[in-house]
Amino acid sequence: MKEFFKVKTIDQALEYATQFPHMASEKVSLTDSVGRILAEDIKSDIDLPDFSRSIMDGYAVRGSSTFGAGEGNPAYLHITGTVSMGNKPDFSVGIGEAVRISTGGMLPTDADSVVMVEHTEEIDDTNIEVYRSVAPGQNMVEVGEDIKKGEVILRCGGKIRPQEAGMLAALGKQTVVVYKKPLIGIISTGDEVVAVDESPGMGQIRDVNTYTLSGLIQEIGATPIPFGIVRDDYEALLAKSTQALAQCDMVLVSGGSSVGARDFTIDVITALENSEILFHGISISPGKPTILAKVQNKAFWGLPGHVVSAMVVFSRIVKPFIEHVNGRADVYRKKIRLTAKLSRNLASAQGRVEFIRIRLRQKEGVLWAEPILGKSGLISTMVKADGLIEIGMNTEGIDKGTEVEVILV
Amino acid sequence: MKEFFKVKTIDQALEYATQFPHMASEKVSLTDSVGRILAEDIKSDIDLPDFSRSIMDGYAVRGSSTFGAGEGNPAYLHITGTVSMGNKPDFSVGIGEAVRISTGGMLPTDADSVVMVEHTEEIDDTNIEVYRSVAPGQNMVEVGEDIKKGEVILRCGGKIRPQEAGMLAALGKQTVVVYKKPLIGIISTGDEVVAVDESPGMGQIRDVNTYTLSGLIQEIGATPIPFGIVRDDYEALLAKSTQALAQCDMVLVSGGSSVGARDFTIDVITALENSEILFHGISISPGKPTILAKVQNKAFWGLPGHVVSAMVVFSRIVKPFIEHVNGRADVYRKKIRLTAKLSRNLASAQGRVEFIRIRLRQKEGVLWAEPILGKSGLISTMVKADGLIEIGMNTEGIDKGTEVEVILV
Repeated sequence: MKEFFKVKTIDQALEYATQFPHMASEKVSLTDSVGRILAEDIKSDIDLPDFSRSIMDGYAVRGSSTFGAGEGNPAYLHITGTVSMGNKPDFSVGIGEAVRISTGGMLPTDADSVVMVEHTEEIDDTNIEVYRSVAPGQNMVEVGEDIKKGEVILRCGGKIRPQEAGMLAALGKQTVVVYKKPLIGIISTGDEVVAVDESPGMGQIRDVNTYTLSGLIQEIGATPIPFGIVRDDYEALLAKSTQALAQCDMVLVSGGSSVGARDFTIDVITALENSEILFHGISISPGKPTILAKVQNKAFWGLPGHVVSAMVVFSRIVKPFIEHVNGRADVYRKKIRLTAKLSRNLASAQGRVEFIRIRLRQKEGVLWAEPILGKSGLISTMVKADGLIEIGMNTEGIDKGTEVEVILV
Repeated sequence: MKEFFKVKTIDQALEYATQFPHMASEKVSLTDSVGRILAEDIKSDIDLPDFSRSIMDGYAVRGSSTFGAGEGNPAYLHITGTVSMGNKPDFSVGIGEAVRISTGGMLPTDADSVVMVEHTEEIDDTNIEVYRSVAPGQNMVEVGEDIKKGEVILRCGGKIRPQEAGMLAALGKQTVVVYKKPLIGIISTGDEVVAVDESPGMGQIRDVNTYTLSGLIQEIGATPIPFGIVRDDYEALLAKSTQALAQCDMVLVSGGSSVGARDFTIDVITALENSEILFHGISISPGKPTILAKVQNKAFWGLPGHVVSAMVVFSRIVKPFIEHVNGRADVYRKKIRLTAKLSRNLASAQGRVEFIRIRLRQKEGVLWAEPILGKSGLISTMVKADGLIEIGMNTEGIDKGTEVEVILV
């Protein structure tokens, strides 16, 4: 019998990510940029706003004209004009004067604040009473208050969320340079596996991993390229792997990653040009039989064939590699995880990290994680699951009520 | 001055969602189904698996042949054959017999369990020693253990995640009936607003809301349809609104939703055929000037023009409406939110729910929410933010260290 070799912990496994290069970059239109990873720093070549703007409907004034004003002691101001939206006012505001202005309007020269219309009353067409004083800077945005000219606003390696797209719009960027989406090849292996459009005979099952892995890849903004099913045959797997490597930036082979007689992934990797096995085996459960190799400078994975195991390994290990290749600079920086209370005691074997599928239940304001048990070949257990929890390597178990971190799946 | 009317709380506002109909359904290929909402129940017409499968490499046996076996006292079994993968074995397993089997292989008749190869030693080509006993059912999956024939596996209104796609693949569904993606029209208003490809003159700013709202809409699996910028002009807004309503399933107008002289959204809604204003004003900050109307059975929104306000209202209020229209049955069922500790005291006005932008920081294993202050017209504050926290209507403030729920944005 063959043996696992170079078994790694999760953290050791993840350290290999930086060995792989980022994707090349491409220019996309702003409209297509959400979800992509910036491949350039974005510096502002303007002040934003580049004029003082009102953020309320009311009157632009010199704040000092309102000092001491109150309900019983209003300030009387003389209306000297109206700011026309989208235009620069060609008048200024003096002491004791007020100018009608709408939200977004440009403040006239010498105005330093805005009185809200709610705090005024018109006496006649040209005079108002003001019932509250305003401090300079109040109810307006100053030049450069949002962004200062020359400031680096967005960093290379950051993800473009809706607000980053809004920021790019504010700066007038119609296109943006992002990393190309990685193409991730998926090969399913197994003599017993048939395609979804086939009727499985006795002893056969349909290919599931191609679909779960494709979905997971899509969710993180990469492009899955399915290469179909390969029989448990060294030559066939070698040929398909060569083809996938030529077309893709990373390759996932599901099944055939263990140490049995039908497990050819290690042999195929060894035969591929320019290949190095980085590890074979991760001290996790499920998911131990996982292979990572560097082949022609690309990550080549052997994933377990059981559907749950493949999903666990993807979510915890493969995903950060894809994000790294996709140019993300912050993959390891911030781990934001949900917490919930464990609904019952859980035992765990020491010496490996154990992943438990859980369902989340809200009861009287408390979020509970309810373990779902079941073998790691059962897709139904993942359908029931909202997430995974991780039981540490040196933990014998976790008590009911303990706060646990949840990886949503 | 006009007045807000029908001001609602968040919960009252959300109750209107069910007044709007779901989208029609369409058939999509399994490959395109991830992220979509099921418009049919999925019932299994097969047992899964429909044969007993090994989940280990080893030997199929009758468990009773191994009872009492241990390291010092192995059971001796006679190898009578090998299961060929993907085929139904044409032999059975008797007492004292073992059959070679790989992971995924079909158990022969009368075998009720599998001995892992790690727990055996081959004495010669036809005999093994077994060092551990196995119970019936061990290291195998029984017929129907994953899914039973006739069971409803996936419910109409559920989201198709990667695992649901895998489940559909297992059942041989090459297509699936989902709700059509809602088309969401976006109209930006304001005399001072210019398109991204224009150079704003003094007093003008570029359109940001079209891009933030488009991104938010895309993220929840709907399709944004931008209708560009409309000046503060009743007739122009009426014409553009009519056009957007004809083409879309929901319309968002940003800007013009308040009660100023330049706010035409209420007037336009009133003029549209078959329209009813459901509320004007929500007791939240920022975001109070929000309008919801039902126009020709579609949701027609007036959103605040300030970019942060529009994003807050979208994330907390509009989003569940889009999800409802998109057929999601579980929009209100499960609120899974992240929690963090507040990094400093925060005061808040009573009588309205306040949303505070926050940045998340991990310090010594504790996740802290650090408030980001700044006016709600500043897009840079959303770029700095990881999320929002909500301070309740009847709360004067929150103390440093309090556990707060975070809405990621």
